[in-house]
Amino acid sequence: MTAAPPSRLPRYTDVAFAATRLGGVAVRTPLLTSPALDAAVGARVLIKPETLQRTGSFKFRGAYNRLTGLAAAGRRGGVVAYSSGNHAQGVAHAAQLLGIPAVVVMPSDAPRTKVERTRAYGAEIRQYERFFECRERIADEIAAERGATVVKPYDDPSIIAGQGTVGLEMIQQARAAGERLDAVLVCAGGGGLSAGTALACSALSPETAVYTVEPEGHEDHARSLAAGHRVSNANAPASICDALLAPTPGELTFAVNQPRLAGGLAVSDAEVKAAVRTAFATLKLVVEPSGGVALAAAMSGKLPRPAGTIGVVLSGGNVDAATYADIIADS
Amino acid sequence: MTAAPPSRLPRYTDVAFAATRLGGVAVRTPLLTSPALDAAVGARVLIKPETLQRTGSFKFRGAYNRLTGLAAAGRRGGVVAYSSGNHAQGVAHAAQLLGIPAVVVMPSDAPRTKVERTRAYGAEIRQYERFFECRERIADEIAAERGATVVKPYDDPSIIAGQGTVGLEMIQQARAAGERLDAVLVCAGGGGLSAGTALACSALSPETAVYTVEPEGHEDHARSLAAGHRVSNANAPASICDALLAPTPGELTFAVNQPRLAGGLAVSDAEVKAAVRTAFATLKLVVEPSGGVALAAAMSGKLPRPAGTIGVVLSGGNVDAATYADIIADS
Repeated sequence: MTAAPPSRLPRYTDVAFAATRLGGVAVRTPLLTSPALDAAVGARVLIKPETLQRTGSFKFRGAYNRLTGLAAAGRRGGVVAYSSGNHAQGVAHAAQLLGIPAVVVMPSDAPRTKVERTRAYGAEIRQYERFFECRERIADEIAAERGATVVKPYDDPSIIAGQGTVGLEMIQQARAAGERLDAVLVCAGGGGLSAGTALACSALSPETAVYTVEPEGHEDHARSLAAGHRVSNANAPASICDALLAPTPGELTFAVNQPRLAGGLAVSDAEVKAAVRTAFATLKLVVEPSGGVALAAAMSGKLPRPAGTIGVVLSGGNVDAATYADIIADS
Repeated sequence: MTAAPPSRLPRYTDVAFAATRLGGVAVRTPLLTSPALDAAVGARVLIKPETLQRTGSFKFRGAYNRLTGLAAAGRRGGVVAYSSGNHAQGVAHAAQLLGIPAVVVMPSDAPRTKVERTRAYGAEIRQYERFFECRERIADEIAAERGATVVKPYDDPSIIAGQGTVGLEMIQQARAAGERLDAVLVCAGGGGLSAGTALACSALSPETAVYTVEPEGHEDHARSLAAGHRVSNANAPASICDALLAPTPGELTFAVNQPRLAGGLAVSDAEVKAAVRTAFATLKLVVEPSGGVALAAAMSGKLPRPAGTIGVVLSGGNVDAATYADIIADS
């Protein structure tokens, strides 16, 4: 069966509860500093490298939190997810750890690395054509056939709460290091990471301004936040950021984000590539293009107000070697 | 003037003192875990990524510790260092932070990245031909001309003590995380990092077996430890590990290492490349070939005795984009 979408909005306490579930399972990624990056940006930058998370992105957090919450009957029926890649790996690996069967619906043009890794975590892959087929419908059909539960990529309170542990840890780690976060930059596809981070920041560090960062032409969060209601991208251009192409903010995520976010920023492909190169050459961290948008925004001075200390989430590092080689060699 | 080599062997207390000097200046690099790597290696692996250190390698620690110890007259005369790259950057950056003039003698075939970065830290570069000129003599001549102090890459108590803070932090961080290190693997060129790490481990965690790791054909530490006295590499083959080509252990470093190390291991270029690829694909960390030898040894099962928990130092990440692209694409 497909569970009806829960209507309750997630709260900070859900994030705190997710942190207890993830303790000892998810990697508590460090909060890194780089004096060279600080000098280049002209501000103190605290980097949260979710590239070092299980499966190479923050998506494991939400997926594991969602799957641990399934009752025994739900676990037996298995789970279905649709994703261009990182949510797929997160769900597949969480399901593997919990012994739950998983099917993942992936676009046929998803990066090869992401498809292979999802399969390596034991999930069954169902590929589809991004421009001709509807992934939600395919997932619903599989769920109906098998009695499986659809695990949405972002518009789910448990997913939002799990991703929010990124923000929760940032605040805790910054505080432990004697730092104070003036701003936090997080990527936004459907808005799950930003919503969870906004919940954590508004509860624990209300002085911290949280911004979404999106690829130019795909800045539906930025425009929706400015408009006060959800708007969609029309005629969106191609983008190097394959994980951030959701056309509109989620319903739940936007309800959480709208009153809590300071605004939305957008970065060009060129700015993203420069950020990936800086992560390579200066930070020595492998970042996928989608995972580098927040760093790109910090490096390109996109913040509307100066910030002394900026938290930057590097959200993922799953990039094909050939794509990565092209980006770093193109200096 | 060139300072006469101090004859006193460094002790653990020198490492502890170096830690206080480096506090707030050097990056306290995290101790990382990767469940995927643990599964691949078949042991718990605790990764110390000195790739995230200032200048992209552990060499900053020793250099800063050495330069802070210079008296006012010594600072005015400036410093001279010779290095294929990472020590060069460490000295140049430490000198920059302390306002000390620096000249660095570098081989003409050093990776371009390393030369450019050393220059960017404000040092004057003097290039030489690796096979025809003697870098020590060039450094001594410059020191005599300018009244500068030669900062040796490893055979110096302050350098050894500074590098030892890597091991000191590993032990502290492992303990704080409730882990116990059965073995620690560190690369060895001249043996400064291993000597400092051995000092820290023997004082604080004597149950931890510390091993050097070197490129095959350049395993002078392994052979010297087995022989009980210093031996040199003869007819050493070419190696991808440009930072680990010292032909023989240092005099001071070997005196420290010999009674404290558990042994020396060697890895092939192919094993090193596989480690660099794993660091890219699984750890999402940029590692230069020389910086990946310890990981290569862990991945290749080189430890003579099984270890439940292995500490691995990723010693540096300064690699040209083109070289790196070649390695990660060659899967």
